[in-house]
Amino acid sequence: MSENLKLSPLAPKTGFPKLPVISGVTFSSHAAGIKYKNRLDIMLASISPGSTIAGVFTRSSTRSNAVLDCQEKLDIPKNKEKGFAFFVNSGNANAFTGEAGNQSVKSIVKVLSEIIKIPKSHIFTSSTGVIGEPLPTEKIVKSLSSLKNSLSEIKISDAALAIMTTDTFPKGSQTSVIIDGKKVTICGIAKGSGMIAPDMATMLVYIFTDAKISQPILQKLVSNISAKTFNCITVDGDTSTSDTLLIAATGKSEASELTSQKPLALKKFQGGLEKVMLDLSHQVVKDGEGATKFIEINVSGAKSKKDSWKIGMSIANSPLVKTAIAGEDPNWGRIVMAIGKSGAIAERDKLKIYFGNILVAENGWESPSYNEKLAADYMKKQDLIISIDLGIGRFKSTVWTCDLTHSYISINADYRS
Amino acid sequence: MSENLKLSPLAPKTGFPKLPVISGVTFSSHAAGIKYKNRLDIMLASISPGSTIAGVFTRSSTRSNAVLDCQEKLDIPKNKEKGFAFFVNSGNANAFTGEAGNQSVKSIVKVLSEIIKIPKSHIFTSSTGVIGEPLPTEKIVKSLSSLKNSLSEIKISDAALAIMTTDTFPKGSQTSVIIDGKKVTICGIAKGSGMIAPDMATMLVYIFTDAKISQPILQKLVSNISAKTFNCITVDGDTSTSDTLLIAATGKSEASELTSQKPLALKKFQGGLEKVMLDLSHQVVKDGEGATKFIEINVSGAKSKKDSWKIGMSIANSPLVKTAIAGEDPNWGRIVMAIGKSGAIAERDKLKIYFGNILVAENGWESPSYNEKLAADYMKKQDLIISIDLGIGRFKSTVWTCDLTHSYISINADYRS
Repeated sequence: MSENLKLSPLAPKTGFPKLPVISGVTFSSHAAGIKYKNRLDIMLASISPGSTIAGVFTRSSTRSNAVLDCQEKLDIPKNKEKGFAFFVNSGNANAFTGEAGNQSVKSIVKVLSEIIKIPKSHIFTSSTGVIGEPLPTEKIVKSLSSLKNSLSEIKISDAALAIMTTDTFPKGSQTSVIIDGKKVTICGIAKGSGMIAPDMATMLVYIFTDAKISQPILQKLVSNISAKTFNCITVDGDTSTSDTLLIAATGKSEASELTSQKPLALKKFQGGLEKVMLDLSHQVVKDGEGATKFIEINVSGAKSKKDSWKIGMSIANSPLVKTAIAGEDPNWGRIVMAIGKSGAIAERDKLKIYFGNILVAENGWESPSYNEKLAADYMKKQDLIISIDLGIGRFKSTVWTCDLTHSYISINADYRS
Repeated sequence: MSENLKLSPLAPKTGFPKLPVISGVTFSSHAAGIKYKNRLDIMLASISPGSTIAGVFTRSSTRSNAVLDCQEKLDIPKNKEKGFAFFVNSGNANAFTGEAGNQSVKSIVKVLSEIIKIPKSHIFTSSTGVIGEPLPTEKIVKSLSSLKNSLSEIKISDAALAIMTTDTFPKGSQTSVIIDGKKVTICGIAKGSGMIAPDMATMLVYIFTDAKISQPILQKLVSNISAKTFNCITVDGDTSTSDTLLIAATGKSEASELTSQKPLALKKFQGGLEKVMLDLSHQVVKDGEGATKFIEINVSGAKSKKDSWKIGMSIANSPLVKTAIAGEDPNWGRIVMAIGKSGAIAERDKLKIYFGNILVAENGWESPSYNEKLAADYMKKQDLIISIDLGIGRFKSTVWTCDLTHSYISINADYRS
C-alpha cells in the first residue's frame, strides 16, 4: 500500500489543506493493524443529533456488505434526538466475503452503537482494500473504545490518512459560502487512486457541512453534483465494489435553512458543495496509480448529454490514448479511434479536435494550420486539455483522467504481494 | 513497427503454417517504402472470375476510407466474367485523412483496375498503420505493376508478412473438409496485435476457399462466425478504424455447391471456416502487444447471451484483472469487481469462479476448498482458463484476451517515434 509508493507528481504542491472545524462533527483515527502495522487504518466521524445524512454508492452488482448496509440505512426513519457516525476501515474491503462479511458489518455496528450510544441505523460504515479476504473484525472491535476516547473536532487530517490504500497523498478540500450574511462551511476528505471509474463515486468520500438542509434536498444535490464530478473521472475504467460518498449536514450554522423556497441561497450552497466535490474528484485522478499527467477532456456539440459523456469517457479510458499521452506523443489519430468506438453519434467530417488551443483536426483530417512540433511541445505539460467539438448538437460534458504508465503496471501487478 | 519487437512468447512454436494453394487465387507482395524501407508493405490477392466475396467490418463511426469503400462495393452487383482483387497496404491507415484519403483509395483502385483488368467495383482495399497521416499514394501506385507481375499461387506467406504492423509474427491458418467425397480447402491470413476489441473483426483478415457458395450464404456464415471468434477477443478494448475481414470463395473445388438444401454439407463447411477463424483470432490475441499470457474466459449460467458476453469482455478488458494476471497473482477479487461493473445481471451469492479446475469462490465468498498456493501455481502457466458460472440462467460465451504488461506501455508510449 501507500508506504512504498512515491508521492504522485500531480499531488497538490501545498500539501493537505487546513480544514476548518465543522460544528457538530468530531473525528478520531487509530492503527488497528488490519493489514499493516503502525499505520492509521480506522477512522470514526461522530456527528451531532439533528443532522441530515445523504449518500451515493457504487452500482456494482457485486457491491460490498458495507455498501448494502449503508444503502438500507439511508431509507430508515431517523431518531432526531440521536447522533450519527461514519466508520471506515482501510486494508480490507470486506467485499465478496459472503455471509461472514455481512456479520462483520453487523458486529462492528453493534459494538460501536453500544460504545458511542448512537442507534445502529445511524451508523454508516465503509471498508476499502483487498476484496475477498475475511475482515479481521476482532481487531477492529477491540479498537473502537480508543476511537471513541480520542474524538476531537480538529482530527480530520488523520481521518484522511486512515482511509488511504494505494493513495500517495491524503485528500481534503474545503470552502464556505455566505447565506443571509451567515457563514456555511463545507469540507470533505476522499480516498481513491485505482479502480476508479464512474458508476457513482468510485472511491470513498466523506463531506461535512454545518448547513441546515432537509435530507431529500441534500440527497438530490449530491446525486446531481456526483453526476458531473465523481462520475466524470476515470483512472482505469475499473469500478470498485465499495464506492461510497456520504455527506452529513449538522445544521449548526447560524444561516437559515436551505429550502426550495429560497432558490438563490440553495444555489449558493450548491456552488460551494460542487467546488469541494470537484476538487476532491480531481485530487483522486491526480493520485491515479502511476499518473504523471492530469487530463481534462471537453466534449461539445454532441447530439445528447449522454453522447458527450460517452465520447469523453471513451477517450479517457482508452489505453492507446493514455499511453500516447504518457509518451508525450500528440497522437490525435488515437483520439479519432476512441471517438469512433464510443458508440455515440459522431460525423467524421464535422469533428474538431484541439490540444489546448491548438486546432489539430477538422474536416475529417489534420488541420492545415496544425504544427506537430507545437503540439509535441504542448504534450510536455503536466496538465493537458483535450477538446472535441462534434459539431452536430448542443450538448457537452467534461471528464478528467490521467495517463497510463509503467508505474500503473508495477503497482497493480503486485498489489497483493 | 515489427522490426524492433521481440517475438511474442505466445507465438506458435511451429512458426507460420504451410498454407495450401487455393485454386483460383494468386498472391504477390512488394516493398513500396510506405513507412519503412526494405520491408514488404503492400500485397495483392487476385481472385478468379465467378468467385463470391463477403465481408465484415468495424462499426466505428470514424472508420477509414478503405472500409467505407469496401462496404459500398459489397452491395454492387458483380460481373460474373470478371475476377476480383484484395489489395492491402501496411504502414499507414489512411483513416481520418479527409477527402484526400478518399481520393487515394479511388486512385489506387483505378490504376489497379487498369493494370489487372478487373472492374473497380471488384477491387477491395485495406490500409493499416498510423491514423491521420496522408497516404503516400504515388509510392503505392508506382508499385502496382510489379505486384501484378509477381502474382503466384504460392506466395500467401509473403502476403501475411506484408500486412503486419506491430505484429511480431505473421498469422496463417488452414483446414479442409470433405463434401460429397471431394475436398474443400479453406485458408486465411490475419494481422493485429493492438487496438484489438470487438466491434466486428478488429484487425485485418483475408480468407480464401475453393468452395462453391452463394454470396448471401457466405455472408451469413462469416457474420455468424465472427460473432463468436473475432468479436470475442480483446487486447486493449480499443477498436480500430480499419477493421476488415474479407472472404473469397472461388468455387473451383469439385465439391457441389453449398446451399441451404444441403444442411449437413453446409454445416461441415461452417465447421471448417470456424476452425480457421478461431485459430486466426487466437493468434491475434497471442500477438497482443506485450502479451505473456493467453487467457480464455468462459462465462456460463447467464440470463442472456448478451450478459454472458458482457461479463466475459468486462473481465477481459479490466486493467486490474490483466495486470494481476501479468503478476501471476490469483487475485479473484478483481474478477468479482469486473463482473460487478459489467452492467449484466449477476447475483453475488450465486457466482462460482474457477481458475482452471480450481474452484476459487462460491456462495459469495472464497470457497472452503480454495488453496491460494495451488492457485498461485496455476497462474504461472502461460495458457490460463478462467471460468465463471453465474448460476442464474442457461446462456454462455467464451472470450479470449491477454495480460497487460510493461511492454504494452513501452510499445504504445512511443509507437510513432
